Amino acid sequence: MTELREGCPDFDNRIHSLGPSRIPSPLKSFESTRRFHRFVTDRDRVLHRSSETFIKECLATGKELVSFEEAGPREYIYFDPKKAKAAVVTCGGLCPGTNDVLRAIVLTLYHVYGVHNILGIKYGLQGFIPAYGYDLEELTPDRVANIHELGGTMLGTSRGPQDVVAMVDAIDRLNISTLFTIGGDGTLRAAAKIGDEISARGLKTAVVGIPKSIDNDIDLVARSFGFDTAVEVAASAIRSAHTEAIGAPNGIGLVKVMGRQSGFIAATAALAQKECNCVLIPEVDFDLDGPQGLLAVLRERLQRRGHAVILVAEGAGQKFFDPGSLGRDPSGNPRLGDIGTFLQHRVQEYFAELGVEISLKYIEPSYLIRSVPANANDRVFCGFLGQHAVHAAMAGKTGMLVSLWNNRYVHIPIPLAAARRKQVDPNGRLWLSVLESTGQPALLNE
Amino acid sequence: MTELREGCPDFDNRIHSLGPSRIPSPLKSFESTRRFHRFVTDRDRVLHRSSETFIKECLATGKELVSFEEAGPREYIYFDPKKAKAAVVTCGGLCPGTNDVLRAIVLTLYHVYGVHNILGIKYGLQGFIPAYGYDLEELTPDRVANIHELGGTMLGTSRGPQDVVAMVDAIDRLNISTLFTIGGDGTLRAAAKIGDEISARGLKTAVVGIPKSIDNDIDLVARSFGFDTAVEVAASAIRSAHTEAIGAPNGIGLVKVMGRQSGFIAATAALAQKECNCVLIPEVDFDLDGPQGLLAVLRERLQRRGHAVILVAEGAGQKFFDPGSLGRDPSGNPRLGDIGTFLQHRVQEYFAELGVEISLKYIEPSYLIRSVPANANDRVFCGFLGQHAVHAAMAGKTGMLVSLWNNRYVHIPIPLAAARRKQVDPNGRLWLSVLESTGQPALLNE
Amino acid sequence: MTELREGCPDFDNRIHSLGPSRIPSPLKSFESTRRFHRFVTDRDRVLHRSSETFIKECLATGKELVSFEEAGPREYIYFDPKKAKAAVVTCGGLCPGTNDVLRAIVLTLYHVYGVHNILGIKYGLQGFIPAYGYDLEELTPDRVANIHELGGTMLGTSRGPQDVVAMVDAIDRLNISTLFTIGGDGTLRAAAKIGDEISARGLKTAVVGIPKSIDNDIDLVARSFGFDTAVEVAASAIRSAHTEAIGAPNGIGLVKVMGRQSGFIAATAALAQKECNCVLIPEVDFDLDGPQGLLAVLRERLQRRGHAVILVAEGAGQKFFDPGSLGRDPSGNPRLGDIGTFLQHRVQEYFAELGVEISLKYIEPSYLIRSVPANANDRVFCGFLGQHAVHAAMAGKTGMLVSLWNNRYVHIPIPLAAARRKQVDPNGRLWLSVLESTGQPALLNE
Amino acid sequence: MTELREGCPDFDNRIHSLGPSRIPSPLKSFESTRRFHRFVTDRDRVLHRSSETFIKECLATGKELVSFEEAGPREYIYFDPKKAKAAVVTCGGLCPGTNDVLRAIVLTLYHVYGVHNILGIKYGLQGFIPAYGYDLEELTPDRVANIHELGGTMLGTSRGPQDVVAMVDAIDRLNISTLFTIGGDGTLRAAAKIGDEISARGLKTAVVGIPKSIDNDIDLVARSFGFDTAVEVAASAIRSAHTEAIGAPNGIGLVKVMGRQSGFIAATAALAQKECNCVLIPEVDFDLDGPQGLLAVLRERLQRRGHAVILVAEGAGQKFFDPGSLGRDPSGNPRLGDIGTFLQHRVQEYFAELGVEISLKYIEPSYLIRSVPANANDRVFCGFLGQHAVHAAMAGKTGMLVSLWNNRYVHIPIPLAAARRKQVDPNGRLWLSVLESTGQPALLNE
Repeated sequence: MTELREGCPDFDNRIHSLGPSRIPSPLKSFESTRRFHRFVTDRDRVLHRSSETFIKECLATGKELVSFEEAGPREYIYFDPKKAKAAVVTCGGLCPGTNDVLRAIVLTLYHVYGVHNILGIKYGLQGFIPAYGYDLEELTPDRVANIHELGGTMLGTSRGPQDVVAMVDAIDRLNISTLFTIGGDGTLRAAAKIGDEISARGLKTAVVGIPKSIDNDIDLVARSFGFDTAVEVAASAIRSAHTEAIGAPNGIGLVKVMGRQSGFIAATAALAQKECNCVLIPEVDFDLDGPQGLLAVLRERLQRRGHAVILVAEGAGQKFFDPGSLGRDPSGNPRLGDIGTFLQHRVQEYFAELGVEISLKYIEPSYLIRSVPANANDRVFCGFLGQHAVHAAMAGKTGMLVSLWNNRYVHIPIPLAAARRKQVDPNGRLWLSVLESTGQPALLNE
Repeated sequence: MTELREGCPDFDNRIHSLGPSRIPSPLKSFESTRRFHRFVTDRDRVLHRSSETFIKECLATGKELVSFEEAGPREYIYFDPKKAKAAVVTCGGLCPGTNDVLRAIVLTLYHVYGVHNILGIKYGLQGFIPAYGYDLEELTPDRVANIHELGGTMLGTSRGPQDVVAMVDAIDRLNISTLFTIGGDGTLRAAAKIGDEISARGLKTAVVGIPKSIDNDIDLVARSFGFDTAVEVAASAIRSAHTEAIGAPNGIGLVKVMGRQSGFIAATAALAQKECNCVLIPEVDFDLDGPQGLLAVLRERLQRRGHAVILVAEGAGQKFFDPGSLGRDPSGNPRLGDIGTFLQHRVQEYFAELGVEISLKYIEPSYLIRSVPANANDRVFCGFLGQHAVHAAMAGKTGMLVSLWNNRYVHIPIPLAAARRKQVDPNGRLWLSVLESTGQPALLNE
Repeated sequence: MTELREGCPDFDNRIHSLGPSRIPSPLKSFESTRRFHRFVTDRDRVLHRSSETFIKECLATGKELVSFEEAGPREYIYFDPKKAKAAVVTCGGLCPGTNDVLRAIVLTLYHVYGVHNILGIKYGLQGFIPAYGYDLEELTPDRVANIHELGGTMLGTSRGPQDVVAMVDAIDRLNISTLFTIGGDGTLRAAAKIGDEISARGLKTAVVGIPKSIDNDIDLVARSFGFDTAVEVAASAIRSAHTEAIGAPNGIGLVKVMGRQSGFIAATAALAQKECNCVLIPEVDFDLDGPQGLLAVLRERLQRRGHAVILVAEGAGQKFFDPGSLGRDPSGNPRLGDIGTFLQHRVQEYFAELGVEISLKYIEPSYLIRSVPANANDRVFCGFLGQHAVHAAMAGKTGMLVSLWNNRYVHIPIPLAAARRKQVDPNGRLWLSVLESTGQPALLNE
Repeated sequence: MTELREGCPDFDNRIHSLGPSRIPSPLKSFESTRRFHRFVTDRDRVLHRSSETFIKECLATGKELVSFEEAGPREYIYFDPKKAKAAVVTCGGLCPGTNDVLRAIVLTLYHVYGVHNILGIKYGLQGFIPAYGYDLEELTPDRVANIHELGGTMLGTSRGPQDVVAMVDAIDRLNISTLFTIGGDGTLRAAAKIGDEISARGLKTAVVGIPKSIDNDIDLVARSFGFDTAVEVAASAIRSAHTEAIGAPNGIGLVKVMGRQSGFIAATAALAQKECNCVLIPEVDFDLDGPQGLLAVLRERLQRRGHAVILVAEGAGQKFFDPGSLGRDPSGNPRLGDIGTFLQHRVQEYFAELGVEISLKYIEPSYLIRSVPANANDRVFCGFLGQHAVHAAMAGKTGMLVSLWNNRYVHIPIPLAAARRKQVDPNGRLWLSVLESTGQPALLNE
């Protein structure tokens, strides 16, 4: 039994394939022009954990090492580029870099593999359903030439599932060889179901996911594209909150950022702009009232320094809301209580009752964060994700996603990544650094 | 009777002075080093209106021409720099460039005039009142060296009036020769009262205002500092709203920007980022319901194009609120109804009733706009404002503000500027360009 | 005789027209939808100088007042939008905002006037000459939708004149009604010649220029588009130079910016980023050697403060070069000696001879400055320039350019603007503020 | 024998320590406030390579696994914070993030460990030498509060070695417990020598390096701080070059970026801004002339597409220069031939001889790249580097540097990192992606 299987009973680490790869990769011809291209084989694998201590322990106790298939171009591929037809779909909320991934997929298919038949599915999974009436978009190098300069997604997106049978009908009708889905965990689950239906029908379509989560909360995905850009914009919102806070007597800057179940954006942005005094994330409980609660801590901070900045992830403090009253969003996720305005009002009430005049500024930059073009770092990353997705799909691999792990690109089976959510470890270096940087106490009454 | 006096019965265009200027300006010595310094005299005046047609009409009808005293260094000054003591105070909401004006005042006083005794008053007018217990801040070139790289105000600020007698007591006690007030119309009115009280007591303190209004709504002030920076950030919020809108089926981006009574930010930002379909400002009435109302226009737009962007100034559409229920803010201004969330809910209700699924994203970037450092253009402008304020104050001029008018810096008596508010002319070029750019109809039912 | 005519013997202030305007403007129909559109008449004129003192002197001495025809939509136009065909050409070096002007022209023609036949001429004036073999580009709202997000010009550009007869042959062959030329003084002169040839042939083509000069050196044009953006980027280069200078013992940052004959970028950027110790511009002579020369001043500065920043416009200090040896560039302008590397070497030599170790960093950001997209302020400005150019051309006005003067848009006859060059006035407020900000002495030996 | 030892005969992977750590870390007290702080032990080690294939091969062949000591807070420390005195020095060229590392060191020492006695050494290693006469700078949280908003280094820097005996005399005289050196490989070598001399004298000073190399070329350091920021600015220079190139007939944009011996900036920036057609780096030879040379490839590109962008690292193509003629720089590194202007002239000559008119724009943004403040990603990274450097030094570890490896922070002995230089692997994924992105051929004649 491995360390991963513990939390994941149906653990299966193998990547499925549509069949044997027998067509020589067009990249082989590069070798003759004196560029040596290191093809990757399915035996190349990257360890799940790089701790020597852990490895030795496994070896000593007979525990199996977990590793992932390495991504990269294969010497032989499954699809004939001349006949192959690709489709790309972007789903869920906007995320910086989506256009870059899309562009990399199109350019790699077109220029590296010679696949010239590439379709863009409009408005997410809705685009497969004829009833919505969206046209398909033909994707060419010219069409995608400048899209990386723009935020959002040139294909449009939507939330929520669609009927799997209807989607596979469309895939069949369009005769798609390789389907690239850019989306979050809902999309990954949909991609898995599409893959199963394709398999059940005996179709030959490879489904490859590029995990998209601005919250950076997908398991076995060390880093989601767009996250670094999101942190950059979130950090500038913290700078604004700090400027507001120090600009007024008893100034309080309150910033709400994304993070439904995982506080990576909040924690990382707090380290990028070290002016937060309290960071609140879904993974770490906190009290509002009582001698150790947030309000008392805030009061003490104002007395001592005259200003404060609070950063809260949208999923933090959900215990203050009645979950039954909130319903679900179009993606089927439970709606969250609005912790930002809740804190805004509670803080204002608290100090009003104390007769202390404060100046609270509430900043909610989420749409400004997610709609910008990707920064350079994310653009490089998106390029690799797109390339590796194409390499995998052309080799006939399916039901998998492309991930960066231990600085290497790997293939992860979709069910494995979708089995649980990645969260900030309250005892890990990231969160401890946040605590060191903010100096915030436990915010919990005994 | 002049064109200005029509709307302003107490029209008085003269600049008051503490007394005759007899001390040669230190700038005189520059001439000997072969730099000729063009001193400005009080007879140099800039016309209120530069239309030849208007001038000729005035001449023909005997109407008096309105003009303003030109700003600039005077050959003789009133205060002895060796003995002079200056104070600076920043009031009201944050505004990009406040630190730049402050820095220019300090550097001009220190390096150009040799005034080395400069005090910073903390947290706006509260800083004059001993009960608040704020320390004074000594301002030196070193202290202000890098403040232009930061947003906000290094002195802090606050809203609302303070007791005039107590403030002048402080000014007297501190023996301040020149007081520079950086603030909006409330501050200008306070400065005028301070000036009157100073005058009544026979003190020799020059009070010079640098008009600050991110809304750009001060009369006889062609441009407020920080406005250009604000437009730049507001424009990027429109870009985000547009990216969101085109990214979803029936996507609507709704952006609320500053503009309590004047829609200059909204109108100008809409021209900077030409992706708005409706711009709503306080100066122009609009209906929500009915065949010509906003909701019907929005519905038609979605049917035709599938997405829309609405930009609303915070003071627009106040007819939809009951003024009695809203109260006043700490500056004493009537609180506005929140037109942003009002529109958000009404638009959502409207389409829900129609059974049309929309995706509305509401963006409220105000604190992000006002807290950034000034852009280059505003920095240049702030430098001139600070310099001219010092030139005026050292010459003993008082009860005035520094303004840019017809591309020249001028002195405006505070009461004149405070008499009415500058607004967007619904028949002027600015608004007509917005209408051309958006293509929006009148939004009013017959 | 007027103030302008003094320097311009052939002074002629009238705007030429192809003939009477008899077609009702499509903007007239807006009035019926309750928007009142203030049409501008040819009698609306803007004064050249807004100084009351000057006006009164003119009136007293009988001197004629100079004024310019105001820009704006005319109630009746010359061309029938249904039949009209427009062409746009962009010439000379890259300049931020060129795409915005181009976009505004296309959108105003298309949406406001209903002109749907719009051609883009590729690569400047070369695009008229068949021998170059460039295709024409059809310009539609879709084609120009996103070009404002990109720097440069979507049409490409080139330098230098082309044969006027051949160009007018092309204009005739293509049956162009309105030709918009976006370019600098060379282009304006070419436009004037094209206009003359058109007139000589009795063709009915309106030629309207939008003045483009990143140096901001076109006479009677208060502000060139792109200039504000250029200053912003130049200011950030000064910030870098300052960071380098303070980072090393005896650190010297040397920045060369654009400014062939006029130092507006250098002077304005120095005010935007007040960390320059010496600013050198073409309009102001300076010595290098001798007790008052730049090198001695620099030495003294290093001894006193340990670091220095020098900002030089490319056209400064040309007396140090032999003009005969430099030749001319493709536009026919005399090539300039490279004052940047010249200063770099002379400063290094000077301190090497003194045995003083320095650390000089030379920064030449010109191409980085001119290739960026326009900032918000320039985008607003470019929108107005494009709109007014279309209003003028549709009214049949020709041989003119659109200019901002005293905060109003006006029509200037091309020959008048091309007659002399706008330069920084060494006795004016701009340069004096630079001297105050830098504290630099005269840099001239007696 | 290990994989690392192959290239490094004196391979020694142990971290030296001044003595046993017996003082309980002040971080221990955090535990009682219910935050659990995971202390790291010296037995925690991170594998050099995370490839499962490689690990298994090692195990099969009996090859020793290489691993590095993990960084992090130790439960017991060596220095008594009350008595400890720290010093920080910044050396070599400017690099984004230097101030952030410095700030993190100061804040961690002060707030986490309670070390209040912190000295800044001015202008690099020169600051230790009394003859230079620089003052020491006292570093407090207030002093470093805003330095992360500024580029460069607040301490100043210099190049080149200083006398080791004199430096250790100063360290001894100042009674420094922990010395933090922020610098590149020259500085690391100096730090090693300082450590040896300290050891020889029996002093108790821990010397910890934070590797600084904007070229990202330090061995066993996966990522240098500032590199990501540098890539971001370099990418925007490529965008400018592309804009220039497409803006002119036969437009060529040529950009030179940093990279003396390693082309990481060029390779990564080319992936961030995929508009380069040829990327030239020190690690990959290229010919200029001949049928496969750069010039012929460029000619073919212009014929086919009409524009091109070339990106060259400063250390590329050194075979075209006579090394004897160039000398050494103040750091003692051999001076490089200026490949940028060399290519500029050779390209111009080549096309002039062919009679082909081109428009070449040469951009050299190095000083603009290295002087900007760090971006958010680098700021987070710099924070961790500074924290871990303090954790290590307080634990008495010496002669080591802090590095990120396989996503974990580790301690690397300085001699090991300094033994060889990290370079772009011409057969690795990075370079192959560049080749795929640019489509550039081998650029080498048979």
